[in-house]
Amino acid sequence: MEITQNIPFNKPYLTGKETNYIKDAVSTGKISGNGKYTKLCQDYFENKYNFKKCLLTTSCTDALEMAAILAEIKEGDEVIAPSFTFVSTAIAFIRQGANIIFADSYPNNPNIDASKIEALITTKTKAIVPVHYAGIACDMDKIMELANKYNLLVIEDAAQAIDSFYISKDGTKRALGSIGHMAAFSFHETKNVISGEGGMLVVNDNKFEKRSEIIWEKGTNRAEFFRGEVNKYGWVDTGSSFLPSDIIAAFLFAQLENLEDIQAKRAQHWNYYHKLLLPLHENGTISLPNINDYASNNAHMFYIVCNNLEERQALIEKLKANQVLAVFHYLSLHKSTFYQKRYYGETLSNSDHFSDSLLRLPLFYELTEENVAFITNIIIEFYKK
Amino acid sequence: MEITQNIPFNKPYLTGKETNYIKDAVSTGKISGNGKYTKLCQDYFENKYNFKKCLLTTSCTDALEMAAILAEIKEGDEVIAPSFTFVSTAIAFIRQGANIIFADSYPNNPNIDASKIEALITTKTKAIVPVHYAGIACDMDKIMELANKYNLLVIEDAAQAIDSFYISKDGTKRALGSIGHMAAFSFHETKNVISGEGGMLVVNDNKFEKRSEIIWEKGTNRAEFFRGEVNKYGWVDTGSSFLPSDIIAAFLFAQLENLEDIQAKRAQHWNYYHKLLLPLHENGTISLPNINDYASNNAHMFYIVCNNLEERQALIEKLKANQVLAVFHYLSLHKSTFYQKRYYGETLSNSDHFSDSLLRLPLFYELTEENVAFITNIIIEFYKK
Repeated sequence: MEITQNIPFNKPYLTGKETNYIKDAVSTGKISGNGKYTKLCQDYFENKYNFKKCLLTTSCTDALEMAAILAEIKEGDEVIAPSFTFVSTAIAFIRQGANIIFADSYPNNPNIDASKIEALITTKTKAIVPVHYAGIACDMDKIMELANKYNLLVIEDAAQAIDSFYISKDGTKRALGSIGHMAAFSFHETKNVISGEGGMLVVNDNKFEKRSEIIWEKGTNRAEFFRGEVNKYGWVDTGSSFLPSDIIAAFLFAQLENLEDIQAKRAQHWNYYHKLLLPLHENGTISLPNINDYASNNAHMFYIVCNNLEERQALIEKLKANQVLAVFHYLSLHKSTFYQKRYYGETLSNSDHFSDSLLRLPLFYELTEENVAFITNIIIEFYKK
Repeated sequence: MEITQNIPFNKPYLTGKETNYIKDAVSTGKISGNGKYTKLCQDYFENKYNFKKCLLTTSCTDALEMAAILAEIKEGDEVIAPSFTFVSTAIAFIRQGANIIFADSYPNNPNIDASKIEALITTKTKAIVPVHYAGIACDMDKIMELANKYNLLVIEDAAQAIDSFYISKDGTKRALGSIGHMAAFSFHETKNVISGEGGMLVVNDNKFEKRSEIIWEKGTNRAEFFRGEVNKYGWVDTGSSFLPSDIIAAFLFAQLENLEDIQAKRAQHWNYYHKLLLPLHENGTISLPNINDYASNNAHMFYIVCNNLEERQALIEKLKANQVLAVFHYLSLHKSTFYQKRYYGETLSNSDHFSDSLLRLPLFYELTEENVAFITNIIIEFYKK
C-alpha cells in the first residue's frame, strides 16, 4: 500500500481535441480575436444558458472592467461587493475611480449577506457585485429586488459559477450569469472549463449590447463593420483590447464540448468528499459547504471550514507532509495593504472567519476515489487528536 | 498560366512546433499566466535585445495600458503621439484620463516628425509615445534628447518593430524597444512573430521594475511571493490581469525559435517588391518606404504611397478584381468620430496624406516570388493607363 499519493491542488484537464481545434483555427487564416471559435463559444453560452449576449475576454478581470466601463462608473461612485472575494472583483471598478463598499458574508456561507446590503446603499451607489462563491448562488431574488428599488445595476461576478443555477421560490431555475444586468465568468486553469487565462462578459440588459462590442474592440465599431452594418469603421468610443486570441477560444471550445462529462466527474468527487466528511460536520468538528434551497451546486470547489487559523495551518501542514496540496483562499479585501487605509466600515467578522478558516481541497477531473479517500482519511485522523 | 492567384493580405504562419509546446505547457500542470513558456519568451527577449525587463501581456494595447499606469498618467495630463497610428496608442492613455496631443508625420515617412514635438510640450506633458511605423525607427536620439530636456517619459509603441534597430550617429545599434523608458510590442496575427492576440511590455527604467510585476498580477505581489522574496502575498496596488495564458506563450515561443528564418523570408519578399517597384518610385509615379540612415528594416510591412484617395481606391479595386487583397491603414486619429470634437490643434496634412494614400501590399511568410511578381505587375499595369 502506498503511503503518499502526491496529489496537487489542481491539474488542468485536456479533453483531447484542444490542439486539433487550435490547428483548425490557424488553418482558417485568422487566429486573432473574434474568429470562428470565439463565435462558437459565444453561441454555445447564449443558447445553453439564456445569456443575452456573450463576449469572450482575456480574463474575468477584463470582463469586469468592461462591465465597469459600460456601467459608466466614475470617480467617487460606490460599488457594493463582498470583502471575501478575489482582488479582481474590486480592482476592475477601482480602475474607473470607484470606492468599494465591502459587505460581510453570511455566517455559514462566504457569499455576500443580502440582508446587509440595503444599509450600505447611498446616493453614490451605482452597482452591486454579488460573487457566487464556489459556484453557489447568492440570493439573487433579494439582490435584484434591492437593485430595482434603488435603481442600481447588478453585475454578477460568476467567475466560479459556470453551469450553476438560481432557483426562485416559484421553482424557476435560471443560470447564474443570466440574472444581473451583466455578468463575468472565468476560464482560468483552476475553473471547471478552462483556457489557461480567459473570461467572458455576459450582457443581459439590451441597452449595453451595442456599446459592449465597441468597448471590446478597442473603441472601434469594427464588429458592426464586419457584419456589414456600417460601411467603414473607426474610433468612436473608449475601450481596450478585451478579445482573446482565437487559439484560446479553440482550446475552450474543446472543453465546452465535454462540459457534461467534466461536470459529472467533478460532482462525483464533490459528493464523495461530502459523504466521507459529513460525520465531522454533523458532530460539529468542522463545517461543510452550505447550499441554500435557492442554489444548485456546480462542483467547482470542495472546501471545509476549520475552527481557526492555527488549526487550518496545522491541517495544511499535515496534508502537505502527506504530499497533498490543500490551500486557503481569499484574505478579506478590506484588510489588504492596498485598501485598509481607505476602509472606514464595520468589522466584517464572517469574511474574516472564512479568510482564517476556509480550506480548499484538491478537486480536478483526474482525481480518483482513492485520492479522495486518502485525503479525507488524513483530515479525519487529524481531528482524532 | 494562371490569371489570378487569390492572394490574401495576411496568412498566419505556423512553424510546426506550436501545438507540441502547447501540449507540453498543459503537461506542466500550469497553463495560466507566468508559466514555463512565459518565462522562456521573456528571457529570450531580455537576452537578445538588451531589454531590461519583459512582461508578456494579452495585447500591445494592454502593454501600453500598463505603461500608462506605471507612468502615473492622470486626468488632464498630456501625452504626445502621432495621429497616424492605431487607436490603441491613444486609448491606453485616455483610459487614465490623458489628453492626446497629436503630432504630424514626416512628409516622406509616417513616423512622428521629431522636429514638431517641442512646440507641443506644455507643463502638462508627461510622455512622448513614438510609434515605429512599419518597424522603421523614429528619430530616437532626438526624441530622447527632448525627453531629457523636459523631464518626460518616452514610451515606444514598438507594436510592429520586433527585431528592428536604431543606429546612432556614432554607429551604435540599439534594438527598438530598448531605448525609451518603456516600450510595447504586439504579437497580433499580422505581425512578424505571432500568437493570435498578444503583446509585451518592456521596462528599461529600473524605477518601474518592481511595480510593473504588481500591476501585471492584478495589483498583488504574487510574483515576488513565488520567488520567495515575501512570505505571503496580497493586494498592494492597482492593476489588472495583464498576463496571457501560457498556451499563448507556448505558441509564441515556437515562433521565436524560428525568428531568423521568418525574418530572412520576409526580407526576401520585401526586397523583391522594392526591386520591382523601384522604377515607379524613381519616375515619381508612387513613393516607396523611406528608410532613414538611423533605421533598420525588419520587413514588417511593404507599402506604397499613391497620390490620393481616389487613385488608391481604384488600385485596391483593380487588385481585388485580380483576387489580391491590399489594404489601406490608419485614419488620422485626430479626425476620428471620438476625438475630432476634442481636437483643437493644427491641420496634420502629412498624417492625412498617409491616411488617404498609403496602401499595404500582402506580405507573409508563405508568399512566393511569383505572387510578388504578379502583384507588382498589376500595379505597374495600373499606372500605365
